Amino acid sequence: MKEALFEITSKRLGVTGVVDDKGFMTGAITDGDLRRAMEKGIDILQSKASDIMTRNPKKITVDALAAEALQKMEQHSITSLFVMDGEKVAGVVHLHDLLKAGVV
Amino acid sequence: MKEALFEITSKRLGVTGVVDDKGFMTGAITDGDLRRAMEKGIDILQSKASDIMTRNPKKITVDALAAEALQKMEQHSITSLFVMDGEKVAGVVHLHDLLKAGVV
Repeated sequence: MKEALFEITSKRLGVTGVVDDKGFMTGAITDGDLRRAMEKGIDILQSKASDIMTRNPKKITVDALAAEALQKMEQHSITSLFVMDGEKVAGVVHLHDLLKAGVV
Repeated sequence: MKEALFEITSKRLGVTGVVDDKGFMTGAITDGDLRRAMEKGIDILQSKASDIMTRNPKKITVDALAAEALQKMEQHSITSLFVMDGEKVAGVVHLHDLLKAGVV
């Protein structure tokens, strides 16, 4: 989990994807997941990523329109989405990316 | 700090303000502050809010225009701002609030 914490910090998105050994996405860990685990008294640094992660993070496909990304973020009151190329993570799009691109 | 964790979760904003006994704001604790403290090996539940908090969270005044709030969020790549009535916290505005209000 220490690796996951540094990954979230280094990407500055408040989230990291969790992939299996084939690179397929199995879940995601957000700052909120960390907080909720802490509330439950879970020792995060001694946990496995799979114990903490959200199993079905919100996603869009790599060919989705930006407007679709925005709609999904608004609908779920979230600020980032994984961008999927099939079962593999191609990237993360943040609400600020959409603002900067003038989508909103 | 347990109280702070529950407060952040209950408000669903990923942040809570920290006020002194007169209700004046002394700082804020975000999910990111919690993560960074964890990375440093700090025992969060045994810490005081003042050890974890950011001392100068981003703010706007209660009479600020929504466009100003949006500009500040974009400039600092953040998604929420404290709304201040003098030295007291009047509320928190989230980027999703601005989207819903049609500001963007």
